[in-house]
Amino acid sequence: MGEAVMKSLKVIKIGGKVIDDEQKLNSFLKDFASIKGPKILVHGGGSNATKIGERLGIEAKMIDGRRITDADTLEVITMVYGGLINKKIVSKLQSLGINAVGLTGADLNIIPARKRNPEPIDFGWVGDVETVHTAWLSQFLDSGVVPVLAPLTHDQQGQMLNTNADTIASSVVAALSNDFETELLYCFEQPGVMNNGKLITVMNLLLYRYLKDGGIITDGMIPKLDLGFSALKKGVKVSIRSFEDVAKLESGTKLVK
Amino acid sequence: MGEAVMKSLKVIKIGGKVIDDEQKLNSFLKDFASIKGPKILVHGGGSNATKIGERLGIEAKMIDGRRITDADTLEVITMVYGGLINKKIVSKLQSLGINAVGLTGADLNIIPARKRNPEPIDFGWVGDVETVHTAWLSQFLDSGVVPVLAPLTHDQQGQMLNTNADTIASSVVAALSNDFETELLYCFEQPGVMNNGKLITVMNLLLYRYLKDGGIITDGMIPKLDLGFSALKKGVKVSIRSFEDVAKLESGTKLVK
Repeated sequence: MGEAVMKSLKVIKIGGKVIDDEQKLNSFLKDFASIKGPKILVHGGGSNATKIGERLGIEAKMIDGRRITDADTLEVITMVYGGLINKKIVSKLQSLGINAVGLTGADLNIIPARKRNPEPIDFGWVGDVETVHTAWLSQFLDSGVVPVLAPLTHDQQGQMLNTNADTIASSVVAALSNDFETELLYCFEQPGVMNNGKLITVMNLLLYRYLKDGGIITDGMIPKLDLGFSALKKGVKVSIRSFEDVAKLESGTKLVK
Repeated sequence: MGEAVMKSLKVIKIGGKVIDDEQKLNSFLKDFASIKGPKILVHGGGSNATKIGERLGIEAKMIDGRRITDADTLEVITMVYGGLINKKIVSKLQSLGINAVGLTGADLNIIPARKRNPEPIDFGWVGDVETVHTAWLSQFLDSGVVPVLAPLTHDQQGQMLNTNADTIASSVVAALSNDFETELLYCFEQPGVMNNGKLITVMNLLLYRYLKDGGIITDGMIPKLDLGFSALKKGVKVSIRSFEDVAKLESGTKLVK
């Protein structure tokens, strides 16, 4: 008996500069639209939330480079990520012939989360993903609809929560990896994981730990790689690449076991 | 042969004070959640958009009591209506056991619209509803999901558009009246259409015109009644009532032919 052929699914995460720059966003979305087959787009917020927060007189509070989500900040994030950016992307995708649907984790209860324990650091209204309910996501994908996910979840008690977009992407791809042959693409403004201006094309856990211990891999790349390796373990194909290379078959830094 | 029994659907529109006041909103949503059967909630923006716009240094521009939607105002509306208010309502409904999904007209291309002709008055980025695509709405309703619609549409060319929530509600209910026995409830802070502090319990076109000519019915009530009578013509049951009476079988001002 032959093996059943599973449909492939790409979960693509963008953040940072591609969202802030209208021209880059348009160009990215055109490439994204050209990708065949089921796909999900997860977006961060870029610097929009910080800028709009500042204009509203709300200062971004950070501990160890991580945003503290107080009540005011959560309102800004819900507005900017869940409204402005999400609907901008959805309407642009519609103009490219993609039937997109913008969702937060509260919509259809797709991603219930737990407010993070305030000890040792109180990050405020930040949610750690509890589970991903895949039924509606699968139904959208089977109907050719493209879900566009904002980095927001909810606690099922009426409270929206701020959740890292990288985490949303890895949680969603892992949850769907029973039903699809999955691929996770972290897209950003660099060609991939870099060492002295040179692209690292293949990365395994040993090399990752070596480069992290050596201070070559730092900051935001660490959680991205942790999440990537954790997805890899669940059978997900993972790469970290430039948003300009989103439609390429292979590109950037590929994670391997 | 017996007649086929159609499922009933309530399309409920809220705006103004109920959205601005957290306690009133909570109480309304509890009543809304208690309503049995398929239902859709359409929300306006209350004074939130104006307040947040002011804090961002964007002044609300009005002509004849109608908001002019310049590019900055559209951004604020997309943030506040499509993000802040929509997700607040969705997460609160989830906590009440209602599986809600927040949507604009761009999501799933549910409501494509045309930018309003700039002559004689240029209202800016305002959309007049072109059509309502009911397939996904019906699928949600059949699955027990409650769509929560923000007053935003899109032009299918990548542009979000501001569309009056009363219009969204009447367009959606009319489009679904082939598949459902429909009812449209305009809910606001008054008990219904008032004359000298007294509730008018039944209104037909003749009485409406008489009261409009006499200056008794003015301002925002005029488009509401125009839309209501137009929905009535298509077989929709229509009432204008207090948001406190949303779950009552009969209440407020009932429109009749």
